[in-house]
Amino acid sequence: MNQNIQGVRTDLALEAREMLTKKIRQDIPGVLMETAENDDILITRVDITTPEAERMMGKVQGKYVTLEAPGLRYKNTPLQKKIMGFLAQELADLVKLSPNATVLIVGLGNWNITPDALGPRVAHKIVVTRHLQEMLSPELKGGVRSVCAIAPGVLGITGMETGEIIQGIVNNIKPDLVIAIDALAAASSQRVITTIQLANTGIHPGSGVGNKRFGLTQQSLGAPVIAIGVPTVVHASTIAMDTINTLQEHATFARYFKSMANLSDQDRQTIVRQVLPEMLGDLMVTPKEVDRLIEDIAAVVSGGINQALHPNIDYENIHLYLH
Amino acid sequence: MNQNIQGVRTDLALEAREMLTKKIRQDIPGVLMETAENDDILITRVDITTPEAERMMGKVQGKYVTLEAPGLRYKNTPLQKKIMGFLAQELADLVKLSPNATVLIVGLGNWNITPDALGPRVAHKIVVTRHLQEMLSPELKGGVRSVCAIAPGVLGITGMETGEIIQGIVNNIKPDLVIAIDALAAASSQRVITTIQLANTGIHPGSGVGNKRFGLTQQSLGAPVIAIGVPTVVHASTIAMDTINTLQEHATFARYFKSMANLSDQDRQTIVRQVLPEMLGDLMVTPKEVDRLIEDIAAVVSGGINQALHPNIDYENIHLYLH
Amino acid sequence: MNQNIQGVRTDLALEAREMLTKKIRQDIPGVLMETAENDDILITRVDITTPEAERMMGKVQGKYVTLEAPGLRYKNTPLQKKIMGFLAQELADLVKLSPNATVLIVGLGNWNITPDALGPRVAHKIVVTRHLQEMLSPELKGGVRSVCAIAPGVLGITGMETGEIIQGIVNNIKPDLVIAIDALAAASSQRVITTIQLANTGIHPGSGVGNKRFGLTQQSLGAPVIAIGVPTVVHASTIAMDTINTLQEHATFARYFKSMANLSDQDRQTIVRQVLPEMLGDLMVTPKEVDRLIEDIAAVVSGGINQALHPNIDYENIHLYLH
Amino acid sequence: MNQNIQGVRTDLALEAREMLTKKIRQDIPGVLMETAENDDILITRVDITTPEAERMMGKVQGKYVTLEAPGLRYKNTPLQKKIMGFLAQELADLVKLSPNATVLIVGLGNWNITPDALGPRVAHKIVVTRHLQEMLSPELKGGVRSVCAIAPGVLGITGMETGEIIQGIVNNIKPDLVIAIDALAAASSQRVITTIQLANTGIHPGSGVGNKRFGLTQQSLGAPVIAIGVPTVVHASTIAMDTINTLQEHATFARYFKSMANLSDQDRQTIVRQVLPEMLGDLMVTPKEVDRLIEDIAAVVSGGINQALHPNIDYENIHLYLH
Repeated sequence: MNQNIQGVRTDLALEAREMLTKKIRQDIPGVLMETAENDDILITRVDITTPEAERMMGKVQGKYVTLEAPGLRYKNTPLQKKIMGFLAQELADLVKLSPNATVLIVGLGNWNITPDALGPRVAHKIVVTRHLQEMLSPELKGGVRSVCAIAPGVLGITGMETGEIIQGIVNNIKPDLVIAIDALAAASSQRVITTIQLANTGIHPGSGVGNKRFGLTQQSLGAPVIAIGVPTVVHASTIAMDTINTLQEHATFARYFKSMANLSDQDRQTIVRQVLPEMLGDLMVTPKEVDRLIEDIAAVVSGGINQALHPNIDYENIHLYLH
Repeated sequence: MNQNIQGVRTDLALEAREMLTKKIRQDIPGVLMETAENDDILITRVDITTPEAERMMGKVQGKYVTLEAPGLRYKNTPLQKKIMGFLAQELADLVKLSPNATVLIVGLGNWNITPDALGPRVAHKIVVTRHLQEMLSPELKGGVRSVCAIAPGVLGITGMETGEIIQGIVNNIKPDLVIAIDALAAASSQRVITTIQLANTGIHPGSGVGNKRFGLTQQSLGAPVIAIGVPTVVHASTIAMDTINTLQEHATFARYFKSMANLSDQDRQTIVRQVLPEMLGDLMVTPKEVDRLIEDIAAVVSGGINQALHPNIDYENIHLYLH
Repeated sequence: MNQNIQGVRTDLALEAREMLTKKIRQDIPGVLMETAENDDILITRVDITTPEAERMMGKVQGKYVTLEAPGLRYKNTPLQKKIMGFLAQELADLVKLSPNATVLIVGLGNWNITPDALGPRVAHKIVVTRHLQEMLSPELKGGVRSVCAIAPGVLGITGMETGEIIQGIVNNIKPDLVIAIDALAAASSQRVITTIQLANTGIHPGSGVGNKRFGLTQQSLGAPVIAIGVPTVVHASTIAMDTINTLQEHATFARYFKSMANLSDQDRQTIVRQVLPEMLGDLMVTPKEVDRLIEDIAAVVSGGINQALHPNIDYENIHLYLH
Repeated sequence: MNQNIQGVRTDLALEAREMLTKKIRQDIPGVLMETAENDDILITRVDITTPEAERMMGKVQGKYVTLEAPGLRYKNTPLQKKIMGFLAQELADLVKLSPNATVLIVGLGNWNITPDALGPRVAHKIVVTRHLQEMLSPELKGGVRSVCAIAPGVLGITGMETGEIIQGIVNNIKPDLVIAIDALAAASSQRVITTIQLANTGIHPGSGVGNKRFGLTQQSLGAPVIAIGVPTVVHASTIAMDTINTLQEHATFARYFKSMANLSDQDRQTIVRQVLPEMLGDLMVTPKEVDRLIEDIAAVVSGGINQALHPNIDYENIHLYLH
């Protein structure tokens, strides 16, 4: 379920709240928010606590945490390490895990479509250990959880719903936790690649770059599901909608209009269809260097997950344990 | 030199002419145009014949041919073959080549940035034969020209201007013709991947997805330069500008405005900068499946060039000649 | 279970039979063989019919068919098409499939290790249709089976046995047939990339380039399993062993030896360990162009499977049905 | 020019010297050698000082330095960093460079053939700065040389000799030094990926995995040329030859032979041709994980070169200077 307020789509709870607050000009009942700032990193925790808030926000009830840092677009090693640490911490706060837990990482999305390839790339960088549990030296036990990972591919590639594949695997492996990674759509181009969202809600149909038809939730899988996502695109229609919104919202431009505030939803759609005659949603806005950026952010997300799941691994000397 | 009319950027002469004609509400003096239609394929030939037309169009004097077919977005083998044939024909019409000519293919752009990777991918699919000339069987001679190809990489990867690299190679190899392939920006999302442009003007600074600082022209290289390009992106700012233009141009929306016709260029920029606070031009609109689409269109472009340069090769049995 | 006769390892029943026949200097009881030749293609059908034959051959009881054509190493389009047809035919002969059957294709092996990447690359080229069954036009029904495909990745990447993953999926999807594709090891470098083996035995531990620890069989999955493989490597130790065997077997060299026939297995091992001090099996012999060759042969194998499973699809016009 | 002693081919001066010394059972006149050991790293400096030594060794006169560390096959970050430092030091010792020197890095080899892709991958990881010289902050000047890089591709891809391409570029760019990176063949599988060779001799025809037909030398280019290489393969024929040599050289096996010592070169060739009926040299022995290993060693080689050329760059904070 992704938000669609005035034609603007977003998978970020943060943005859905921003847009809705702006529209209704007041706080949203049942939505709690807190923020923390650390140097260049802004942490926002949104908690959707009532069914009514879920309906208004267009986002499933639960906790959503975002880490934002514009610097993530640049190969800034110290910043990347800092964010890995925060991500590990927020993940550990969202779900309490026993040292003996088995965790299944699911990399959602299509590896052939760069902006949708975040999930598969993160899955590939996870330190998998489930097959090594007997071989681990005693001092590592307790700090190296049993982790496995898969990037199942999308419906068009496999002919199977991702949900069908993951359900089958979960039934066989019986993990204590599933972490699903997915590429998201943002409403603002500034949040693309600069924001990481964690949620304890699982994955819901219609979300993500690839527009899922299935869900991965505690209900469907029988295990808790944490969703971690990074916006990699803005829908092209959002740019057009946003242009209209900007025109009508800014006092500067008021002199041009008789009554822009009343521009009907239908008229908005007409304009967007004129500018983007394609099937809406098939055109995406991405930074030109999206290939490199996805690679970099995948390293950050996988680094954070690895730290949260394997606190005792010394990554500088990872070769000592793992071959 | 790419067109920039009312903030909308395009590398297609066809679109520059469309926009300008709409703006000045008359034909552009010194610009000739003819079209031909064949089933699903539209061929347009634009000839910019005067310095004044060059200035108005923001495009260098010379001949521009576009092949348009919306079907190019789908894996339609018969259509692809038909367009290869047309492309070969238009190329042969633009430049008369002796059977003994040596041709250098230059694949411009950055192979790490998918929408900018058209040139390198086409170069890679060219049947290079310059090193095989002595080995060719007599019946092939005359129908297999001496062809070589290079994708030199972009300034940020090599530290050298593409012009410097190609000039050095041209001085050594002395080709009779250079064909430069490049990814382009269109004004309309419908032309992305569905249009191929050939021009006898060479490559000029500022054009293409990667915004060249150099030119590849007869003047700079000492050999004629044919440019072949395919639009792979629309600049995100074009979407925003286009939205504003649509609003103000359509009579339907006139009732909202006092005086939208007068929206100043500065105000337009203010809006776009609000919607897209990034450095303009760094955000691009592409179809989601751009990876596959670039691969497909690269096969069509290289197929057309191969046919034009090697009319005697039987591609079904290419293995018989070439190893 | 792969053959290991005099230190020479092979996954091909054909080669196991050759080596054993040469060693025991007589036909192997319980092993039937027939061959057919068609232009440049040799078809060999080996049938292992008794437990004793299974033990002697080091290969599970069942039918093994090989298609051999040295021309497969070259981009010979007509030959490739012919072999796709033969492969489709042999596959149809090995297993009778109802037009309504659901088939799961499993691409085994590691996509990061080129010679082990055959399975994933074939899986990727399969025309998957299971998700399209309701959308198919009536004239296609009956000629387009319900096909799905997955390349699950290897133990070191997922932390899960391939068997665990596939079992989970099979339990959910309930296919009527599983076809598992895998890269194999040959005894002779001449068979690398030039040979395709089909077997109705499934996949057994210890076989393939990646040395599986699991099996994919009717017994483990509850559905019949066809294995299709292509040798992509020769183990380096096989080259060394083969050198020793050649020395001692050829009359020409007899003058050098007192008693080479008696070279003990232990002495052979000593020599190989001297020449190849690495862990045996980690060094592989491949043609230099293995990347391109794997890509080409994957197209042939997937083409044959697609023809067998979807006899009614017109591949020239595949875009008409599938989007 | 690569060594070919008793049918065993190597591009390493170190191995050529080893084999020749063993064969002639004495030191080679005109060949100087010194070694240094540091923990797990062995540095060997071979100096070929006379035309007679050049002829005997089958290696051009000049200095060859090898760094050997078996640990290079494992993702051992501290070891990798140590070797980068040694490589930078040895490179600085081989050629004195002014702080204002312009350096051209040439990545030789074919990026489509994994074991031949070392050069292109190293070139890609070089910090190129030639286009940024005016933008550098004053405190960096002097410690960041003007570096450019190109991977021109091989003859079969471009139709042009690498020498032709590089000569053209060198004429235009006029670098003070050329560093050419290439994948090599070793005689011993243990040296594959564990050894880095530097030489002040440039590149000579016949060397490397791809068997060059051209040279890149001070004579051909007009600038000094440092060659840096890593063995990525052993020729399959070397394994066979080595097996024969082992058989005949080890006292243990003497009891089998009448007169193995006299095994003629022609008989050796007969055996190898029997075992490897392919065109010799087309079959290569590589570790199974060659894809990952090439990536890792390319990072080490490029890291060493970057350190040598840009001593003042703080790589942890490279993002601060370079965008």
